[in-house]
Amino acid sequence: MGHLRTQRQWRLVQNPHPPFEILSEAQLRRIDAAAMKILADTGLRFRNVEALEILDQHGAQVDFDSQMVAFDADVIRRHIAKAPRKFVLYARNEAKNLTIGENYINFAPVSGPPNFSDIDGGRRPGTHADQCNLIKLCHGLNTVHLGGVSVEAMDLPADSRHLDFCRAQTLLNDCAWNTRAIGRRRVADALEINCIARGIDKKTLIEKPGLTTVININSPLMVDAEMLAGLMEMTRHGQPCIITPFTLAGAMSPATIAGALAQQTAEALAVLAFVQMVRPGCPCVFGGFTSNVDMKSGAPAFGTPEYVKGVLAGGQLARHYRLPYRASNVNAANTADAQATYESAMSLWACFLAHANVVHHAVGWLEGGLCASLEKFIIDAEMIQMLSAAFSPLKIDDDEFGLDAIAEVGPGGHFFAAAHTMARYRDAFYQPLLSDWRNFETWQDDGAQTATQRANRIARNLLAAHQSPPLPAAAIAEIDAFIEKRKAEIARDGEV
Amino acid sequence: MGHLRTQRQWRLVQNPHPPFEILSEAQLRRIDAAAMKILADTGLRFRNVEALEILDQHGAQVDFDSQMVAFDADVIRRHIAKAPRKFVLYARNEAKNLTIGENYINFAPVSGPPNFSDIDGGRRPGTHADQCNLIKLCHGLNTVHLGGVSVEAMDLPADSRHLDFCRAQTLLNDCAWNTRAIGRRRVADALEINCIARGIDKKTLIEKPGLTTVININSPLMVDAEMLAGLMEMTRHGQPCIITPFTLAGAMSPATIAGALAQQTAEALAVLAFVQMVRPGCPCVFGGFTSNVDMKSGAPAFGTPEYVKGVLAGGQLARHYRLPYRASNVNAANTADAQATYESAMSLWACFLAHANVVHHAVGWLEGGLCASLEKFIIDAEMIQMLSAAFSPLKIDDDEFGLDAIAEVGPGGHFFAAAHTMARYRDAFYQPLLSDWRNFETWQDDGAQTATQRANRIARNLLAAHQSPPLPAAAIAEIDAFIEKRKAEIARDGEV
Repeated sequence: MGHLRTQRQWRLVQNPHPPFEILSEAQLRRIDAAAMKILADTGLRFRNVEALEILDQHGAQVDFDSQMVAFDADVIRRHIAKAPRKFVLYARNEAKNLTIGENYINFAPVSGPPNFSDIDGGRRPGTHADQCNLIKLCHGLNTVHLGGVSVEAMDLPADSRHLDFCRAQTLLNDCAWNTRAIGRRRVADALEINCIARGIDKKTLIEKPGLTTVININSPLMVDAEMLAGLMEMTRHGQPCIITPFTLAGAMSPATIAGALAQQTAEALAVLAFVQMVRPGCPCVFGGFTSNVDMKSGAPAFGTPEYVKGVLAGGQLARHYRLPYRASNVNAANTADAQATYESAMSLWACFLAHANVVHHAVGWLEGGLCASLEKFIIDAEMIQMLSAAFSPLKIDDDEFGLDAIAEVGPGGHFFAAAHTMARYRDAFYQPLLSDWRNFETWQDDGAQTATQRANRIARNLLAAHQSPPLPAAAIAEIDAFIEKRKAEIARDGEV
Repeated sequence: MGHLRTQRQWRLVQNPHPPFEILSEAQLRRIDAAAMKILADTGLRFRNVEALEILDQHGAQVDFDSQMVAFDADVIRRHIAKAPRKFVLYARNEAKNLTIGENYINFAPVSGPPNFSDIDGGRRPGTHADQCNLIKLCHGLNTVHLGGVSVEAMDLPADSRHLDFCRAQTLLNDCAWNTRAIGRRRVADALEINCIARGIDKKTLIEKPGLTTVININSPLMVDAEMLAGLMEMTRHGQPCIITPFTLAGAMSPATIAGALAQQTAEALAVLAFVQMVRPGCPCVFGGFTSNVDMKSGAPAFGTPEYVKGVLAGGQLARHYRLPYRASNVNAANTADAQATYESAMSLWACFLAHANVVHHAVGWLEGGLCASLEKFIIDAEMIQMLSAAFSPLKIDDDEFGLDAIAEVGPGGHFFAAAHTMARYRDAFYQPLLSDWRNFETWQDDGAQTATQRANRIARNLLAAHQSPPLPAAAIAEIDAFIEKRKAEIARDGEV
C-alpha cells in the first residue's frame, strides 16, 4: 500500500454510553441466587493447603480431606465488598498508567499461545525472537495498553523462560503488563524485575501496582495448587489478579449460557472472596470467558452469538458486584481471514458494549488461542481504533452544523471547497491504519493486496521502526544480574 | 469444507433490546431545529413541474422558476404525521410477508452495482446471468428478506433491462422486492408484473403493498425529475418509497456528522412530506445513508466510525418522527477480505443497535457499491445470522441453569455426558453457515481454505440447489406476454 496512515494517538479509551444490558433485574437476581446456591451446596476444590487454611480462618466451610470449600452467601458478599471498584495500574512510563474500572476499556495482546504465524513463514512453534517481535509490535501499536506473553518461547527451557519474557517485556516496552502466575517463584521474579525497572521498592509496588495476571479456574469448580500459589504471591504484593473461570458451555459447564453464567459467577466470586481474605482491599478483576463448544464435534467456538451474550451478561454481573470486568477478543479461525475478522468483530463489539475494563487477547489471537498471528495484530488494532472512535462523543453544535455552508453550496453543489470544509479537512474523520479506500483500478495496479497482506507490511514497518523506550543502564544491569542469579538457581535446584 | 452446515430458518428478525441511542434529547432537538431551518431558509430543488404543483397546493413555498421549495416546520410536521409508523410488505409467498417498523430488522441484497465478482473469474461487468444467479442466491439464503437488482445486467439494453429483472425476480424468488424508480414507466411495469404474479388487482396492491423502491436525493438539496416521477407512481399505488439522501460528509454535505445529519434530516423530511401530499397515509421509510469521504483523497468511506454514528443517530431521528428507518451494510474494500468484513461488521452492528427496519446492501456489497461479490453474500449472511442470534432473548430459568448437572459433574469433571447436556446437544448453540471450527491440522489437511474460498463453495452449492418457487403457468405466460408487449413498445417509441 502506497500510503501508510498514521495511527490514532495513544489514549485511554472510554465508552461514554451506558453499558448495553441484556439481563432484566429479575434475571440478574436469578443468576446471583444460582451462583450462591452452587457455592453453598457444592463449593469449589482449592488444591492448596495454605489456601485452605486461609479460607477456613475467614468463614468458608473447608473440608481438608476433599479440599472442597463451600461458602455462605454472606461470606462471599462480605469479602468481595472489600475490593475496589476501580484502580490505577502503573506503567514504568507513567504517561501510560491505566484506569481499570468504570467505563474505561483497556487492551492487552493475545496471551500465551504455543504457535506463531505470519504469511511469510506460515504457522510454526513460537520462539523467543517471535515473542520479542510481538512485544515490540505492542509497543508500536497505540491501541495496545498492556504487555504480555503474546507467544510462548518454545525454544527456551520451560522453567526459566519467564525470566527471558520479563526482561524483553521490560526493555522493549514501557507499559504495565500481564505476567504468568504458575507458582510463587515465577510471580516473585516478575515482581522483582518490575520493581527494578520502575526504581521502586516492594512497599511502593503495593501502593502502585504495575503487574496483573490471569488466574484461570480449572472449571468446573477447581483451582489448582500452583495457580493459588501465584495468586497469593500477587495478592500479598497488592498486584491485581484477574480471576477467570473457563466456562465453556457444553464441556466445562452446562450446555446453556444461563448455566455457564451461574457457574462462572460462582467460581469467580469464590476466588475473588479468597483474594480479599489474603489481602483486604487488594485490587482484583472479575473475569469472564464464557463461550461454548460445537455440540457436534466438541470443538470450542469463540466470537459466537452465545459468546456475545456471555460477555454482555458477564459485564452486568461484574457491575452488580461492583468489580472491574475482563473479557476477550476471541475467534476460532485457523487463518487471518474473514472468519477471524467477523468472529473478532463480534467479540470486540460485545467488549465495548459491556464496558469490559480489560480486554485480553485484544490483538493477535487465532485458533481459539493456539496461535498468535502477526497480521491479526494489525487487523485487530484497526478494529479497536475504529470502535474507540465510534464510541467517542458526537459533537452537535451550531459550528458543527455548518448551516451557512449548506446555504452557500446550495442544490447540486459540493462541499469540497467550502470554508467550513477547509477548516476541518485535516482531522475531520477517522483515518485508517489498514483499510485501503482507493478505487479498484488504483488498488489493482498497486498489486491488489488483501487486508491481510497489507497488515503484514504494516507490522513489518512497525517492527523496523521500533525503538526501545529509555531505561537507565544501571536498571538493565541490575535486571540482567538478577536473571543470571535466578537462572543459576533454577539450574542448580532443578525447579523454578 | 467437508461439513456444510444448515442455515438458520427463515424468520422475521427483531432486536428485543431498546435501540442504542447516542443523541441526548437536547442534541436530537438541535438537529431537528437545524433541519427545519434548512427547510425554511433554503429548501430543496424539486426538478419536476407536477411535483412542484402538488407542493404548491399543500402549503410549501414554491418558486416555479428556480424550482426551489421551502417548507415551514408545521407543514413538514403536519404531513409526515400522516405516515404509518409501521406497515406490512407483502410477498407473493405470504409466509414471507414482512413487518416494516418497530424493532423488526429486514435485510435486502446489494442494489445495482455495475460489476460482479467471484474468485473464479475476478471482477467484470455484471450480466443478466449473474443477476439471475444472485436472485437465486437470495432465494436460497434464509437471512435475505427482500429481493432486488443485486447487479446490473450490463449485457442488456438499458431501456428494457428492468423488465428482464422483474421477470427473473418474480420467477426465481417469492419474496417482496425493491424495484427501480427511474421514471414512471419503469415503476408502472414493476407494479403490473407484481400484480400478475400475486394474482391481484391494483386496488388490492394499494391495500397490500408488495414493492419498495429507494428514492435517492441528489444531495445537496436536489430531487431529480425522473426520481420524482417514479416516486409519484409508487406512492399513487400505495407502495412504500424509501427516501434516502446521499449525505456523504465532506462532499455532498458539510464535513461533520452533525452537518450531514441535519442535512439528511431536512432532505428526507421534505420528500417524505411530499409523499404524504401525494397520498396521505401512504407507507414510507426514512432512509439514512450518511457516511464521509476520506478528506485526503476525496474517496468515499463506508463502515467507518462516523458511519456508525450516522446510523445510530439516524435511527433515533427516524423514531422521533415516528417513521420506519432504513440503513445499510456497507464497506469500501476492493475484495472480500478482512477489510470488507470489519467495515461490514461495523455497519451491521450499527444497523442492529439502531433498529434499522430495512437494511439495504445487507449481503454482497463491495467497493462502496460498485461491485457485487458472490463470496461476500455468504460472509454477510453468516454475520447477519450471528447477529440475529446474538440479539435474541437470553433464557434464564432453573431448567437452563442445570444446577443438578453442576453438582453431579463436580470439580474437574466434564459435562459432555451429563443428562442436562444430552437433552440439549442438538440445538443448544448457534450453528454456523461459513465458520470452520475444526482444529488447525484437520483444516490444513482438508485444503486450508480461507473463509472466502469456503464462501464461494457454499454459494455454488446454494445455486445448484435452487428450485424456482411455484408460480402458475398462466401467470408466467401473462408476465411474458406483458414483457413482450412492453419491449415492442420501447423498441418502437425509442424510450421507456
